Amino acid sequence: MEKDKEVKHLMLSKGMSVGELIDGFGYTAFNSRRIADAVDIYEEMIETGARKFFGLAGAMVPAGMKNIISDMIDWGWIDVLVTTGANLTHDLIEAFGCHHYLRSSSEPEKDAEFRREGINRIYDVFLRDEAFITLETNLWEIFEDIGEKGKDISISGLMREVGSRIEDEDSIIRRAYEKDVPIFCPALADSIFGLQAWMYGQTHHLSVNAFADMREFSDLCFESDKSGVTIVGGGVPKNFIFQSMLLNPDAGFDYAIQITMDRVETGGLSGASLEEAVSWGKIKESGRRVVVYSDATIVLPLICASLVDRMNKR
Amino acid sequence: MEKDKEVKHLMLSKGMSVGELIDGFGYTAFNSRRIADAVDIYEEMIETGARKFFGLAGAMVPAGMKNIISDMIDWGWIDVLVTTGANLTHDLIEAFGCHHYLRSSSEPEKDAEFRREGINRIYDVFLRDEAFITLETNLWEIFEDIGEKGKDISISGLMREVGSRIEDEDSIIRRAYEKDVPIFCPALADSIFGLQAWMYGQTHHLSVNAFADMREFSDLCFESDKSGVTIVGGGVPKNFIFQSMLLNPDAGFDYAIQITMDRVETGGLSGASLEEAVSWGKIKESGRRVVVYSDATIVLPLICASLVDRMNKR
Amino acid sequence: MEKDKEVKHLMLSKGMSVGELIDGFGYTAFNSRRIADAVDIYEEMIETGARKFFGLAGAMVPAGMKNIISDMIDWGWIDVLVTTGANLTHDLIEAFGCHHYLRSSSEPEKDAEFRREGINRIYDVFLRDEAFITLETNLWEIFEDIGEKGKDISISGLMREVGSRIEDEDSIIRRAYEKDVPIFCPALADSIFGLQAWMYGQTHHLSVNAFADMREFSDLCFESDKSGVTIVGGGVPKNFIFQSMLLNPDAGFDYAIQITMDRVETGGLSGASLEEAVSWGKIKESGRRVVVYSDATIVLPLICASLVDRMNKR
Amino acid sequence: MEKDKEVKHLMLSKGMSVGELIDGFGYTAFNSRRIADAVDIYEEMIETGARKFFGLAGAMVPAGMKNIISDMIDWGWIDVLVTTGANLTHDLIEAFGCHHYLRSSSEPEKDAEFRREGINRIYDVFLRDEAFITLETNLWEIFEDIGEKGKDISISGLMREVGSRIEDEDSIIRRAYEKDVPIFCPALADSIFGLQAWMYGQTHHLSVNAFADMREFSDLCFESDKSGVTIVGGGVPKNFIFQSMLLNPDAGFDYAIQITMDRVETGGLSGASLEEAVSWGKIKESGRRVVVYSDATIVLPLICASLVDRMNKR
Repeated sequence: MEKDKEVKHLMLSKGMSVGELIDGFGYTAFNSRRIADAVDIYEEMIETGARKFFGLAGAMVPAGMKNIISDMIDWGWIDVLVTTGANLTHDLIEAFGCHHYLRSSSEPEKDAEFRREGINRIYDVFLRDEAFITLETNLWEIFEDIGEKGKDISISGLMREVGSRIEDEDSIIRRAYEKDVPIFCPALADSIFGLQAWMYGQTHHLSVNAFADMREFSDLCFESDKSGVTIVGGGVPKNFIFQSMLLNPDAGFDYAIQITMDRVETGGLSGASLEEAVSWGKIKESGRRVVVYSDATIVLPLICASLVDRMNKR
Repeated sequence: MEKDKEVKHLMLSKGMSVGELIDGFGYTAFNSRRIADAVDIYEEMIETGARKFFGLAGAMVPAGMKNIISDMIDWGWIDVLVTTGANLTHDLIEAFGCHHYLRSSSEPEKDAEFRREGINRIYDVFLRDEAFITLETNLWEIFEDIGEKGKDISISGLMREVGSRIEDEDSIIRRAYEKDVPIFCPALADSIFGLQAWMYGQTHHLSVNAFADMREFSDLCFESDKSGVTIVGGGVPKNFIFQSMLLNPDAGFDYAIQITMDRVETGGLSGASLEEAVSWGKIKESGRRVVVYSDATIVLPLICASLVDRMNKR
Repeated sequence: MEKDKEVKHLMLSKGMSVGELIDGFGYTAFNSRRIADAVDIYEEMIETGARKFFGLAGAMVPAGMKNIISDMIDWGWIDVLVTTGANLTHDLIEAFGCHHYLRSSSEPEKDAEFRREGINRIYDVFLRDEAFITLETNLWEIFEDIGEKGKDISISGLMREVGSRIEDEDSIIRRAYEKDVPIFCPALADSIFGLQAWMYGQTHHLSVNAFADMREFSDLCFESDKSGVTIVGGGVPKNFIFQSMLLNPDAGFDYAIQITMDRVETGGLSGASLEEAVSWGKIKESGRRVVVYSDATIVLPLICASLVDRMNKR
Repeated sequence: MEKDKEVKHLMLSKGMSVGELIDGFGYTAFNSRRIADAVDIYEEMIETGARKFFGLAGAMVPAGMKNIISDMIDWGWIDVLVTTGANLTHDLIEAFGCHHYLRSSSEPEKDAEFRREGINRIYDVFLRDEAFITLETNLWEIFEDIGEKGKDISISGLMREVGSRIEDEDSIIRRAYEKDVPIFCPALADSIFGLQAWMYGQTHHLSVNAFADMREFSDLCFESDKSGVTIVGGGVPKNFIFQSMLLNPDAGFDYAIQITMDRVETGGLSGASLEEAVSWGKIKESGRRVVVYSDATIVLPLICASLVDRMNKR
């Protein structure tokens, strides 16, 4: 027990910055305090020059969190991005000029009607069928431009090629390309992006090698003095980042942050505690770690805005 | 569908206020957007002069949220408070000079050891046995001072009497007394506060009538033009506030906000949707309503800080 | 670690009894194993003659779980029942001849329409407005019959009086009366039943004393050699049963089972771990305990059916 | 509303079969009723000869659910299996003679100690480091035996080759091979199995083509008259099975069952409602569907045991 650390009740004030609020969270309990811990850990990751892995699952791009990821890449707060095909697909859809739309959350859901109207629902977000046509057209043009280089290409290599051919400044894929941040997506086949790559490859040179990234990824895990990981959601990005540490018995992350609503008791990896990860050697025994149990659309902006204050960004 | 409302990706900036962040949340999705909706609804409640009921469950006082509640009372944002005996007990413990303490959330839990050391755990918060002794001593003095007025006293009446005898300016009970905001606590018997009241009453005049508040409470529900409710958690406060509306077939809240982690699918009232409440007439069909599914220690400060900005408080 | 206990994969077979399935659960993991643990603990509670407290929250009567509770009372598996006013209200509604109805869970919810049709929704269950009229009529007749005995009556006393005047053999209140199992309901005021008692009392003799049960309840906690508790949901019943143990520093339950979907991380008492309860002295350090994280409409029947097999009932 | 369907309270009896219990669940509410719905839907899938897709995420093999999956394959209840690399890895570990072990869930977690002792924790299950060495040795022997056929092999092809070389009768991979049920695992790279395949391939002929299955998989989706899907958990298997339906605008599953603890409100695909899937055309508007919100280690055995009764198996 930290014997002398009293709970201090939050005092709100007009114009209070997010950074000030989160500092106050450090003296509260439950999940608000966990956010303050996460900011402290992330700050230490940045200051110690740890290599910062970032696992992004969930529908964070449709939710309006794209620029946060792009900016974190820009500011050097993400060194390695591991994400789902879905987030990359939605990033591309916006890069090609389409949009996600909001619907009123109090409106009853009329999914059969939506189907007939060509509207695809992601909880309270909409995407029109046209977006997928635009995606296909633009992506095939890019694939064509990639040409021979697309033969037996790694997924991170494909992302670099695509990133260099996108103009949207806010695009995660573009920004990662510019900042030389590799994007890994081990389950690319499990996305519209992956489906398009496969379909194009049926009649053209493109062939994606889902295993070709493993060397680069494990090198990234082992060649740095210190390393940290931030996990949004769970899923494949969480497992993939952690499993790489299993290749080296002396390894393990020095820092780990997870934001999730999953729970530990059902035994799935997404909800597994970061202590459990210590037993596997994925995180060091001495590794600083925290899980925030809350919706990432709330927590990620809070952590990031607080870091912006502390690190004097923008 | 609000056809033209695009998802706009959050842009964070240095020194950004909580109010600005929440305004940005209004163009995102999932639970972050729900927070923005909640702020809009609360603001409308304030501006239309609706009577504002506030149901507070969960361990919000031990968590460091006491001053938020006190300030909301002070600013006229809570007209009627319904809460648990636990929150009132912990409010009193602090009013009598004791503290809640934080422990490191990464430390393993040693509950058997804590037991031997006289430490009572509330997740990552501690309270020492001494606090309960201090509570008893001080509360009995107050009960003695109340004297004859304590015979057949209503729970809200008891709170007023106690509130007038507390000096702690931050205390919810004190502040409610000062601002003439009634505190209802239908399950007072289910708390240490209630136990103390009962024990004292065994040998003294105090006798608490748990049903004596019903007239006042139902009058409060029906005598105002507009009414709104904010529910933190669920539990007895949620049910009690809503059931009062069943006494008048034409009634129903005009506004409703809930912050909870409970889920709808298990059928309990705490997690029941606000749409379900419409079928009972607890909320008007036209009533504006939103549930934020997240930890209240994060969400309540966000909503309140955002309102402070908008309403120009402090 | 139990070194030699291997996971044994479940083998299903035709006509397999629930008891056999749960025995198999004992060699699986996660929540299925927790059910097997719960059955073992409950069986030991019965065999050691522990006093068995049972805390029942949630909408278990509307959900079709009434007879399980009645039968558990009948078989001597519940010695003390602590529940919500809602469960008692719905028990009475059925005792007076009304029914709960099921709706298709795939049907869209039309709560505004339901409101106009006099249908009250509890997730996928319906109750008609008429049920509440029937409740009022019948309850007032019973109150009238109780007469003078209703003055300053304790809640458990009121339940006994009501139970003796109900004919429905399946009613929990009736069965508890027959078996001399006391029913405590500290938040009775927070229910339609409580509202009716209050309204009747406005013009008649009935006056309910919500604190009058405390002596009897704390005696029940301390006068038995061993004691155990089963908690369905959480809420007031969980807190009330546990807090009684705080009155005696040497006390604490020997056995504890909880079935809940609440989570620990938000700090509320409903989701608090049973280890946390050890720090308070609510459960003995040596107390056997388990939480099953799942919907009680699934888990309670499984536990109970398995006990029926083991204890050779019906 | 099904006007005349009353809630019927569950009646338990000695020796009651799981099938009888689940039949009773059909007249209860909340998640117990959803289990009864799931059994009805699965039975109709079997009887109409629908092609039955099965998405298996979560740590179901370590949890003791392996034989249920193997038997479902054996009985023709799974026509196409889509799963995670983790489940396949753990299936192989057992096929090669190693075991998963249970630890007491009431024991405090000592992950740092476990690390030093070579114990890897999966919630309340243990696996020793040796298991991974055994896995490597045996898998490399199989890879060697596969030889040239391993060049540019599809993942389902690799599973067939491995399956034909395993002797363990209970193995999912073996049973699927015997019954000619294809196993898809789009994120194989995200598992120890995948890591081993990659490492072996560094110096030998093996090269896995993660996209080579797409033709076969989409053919499976479109060439049958009726199709149904059962999803355990969510994750990649859920997304992969559903996304294949996007390739054909007239397609969509006729039946869909999901067992999950994920929630809808955070917008992730794992927790997305099956109604949302209708808007995408993944499930037909007329498709029968149900989600059971509970731990799959409880629900999957219940559904399957009930089907065993109905279909007269074993």
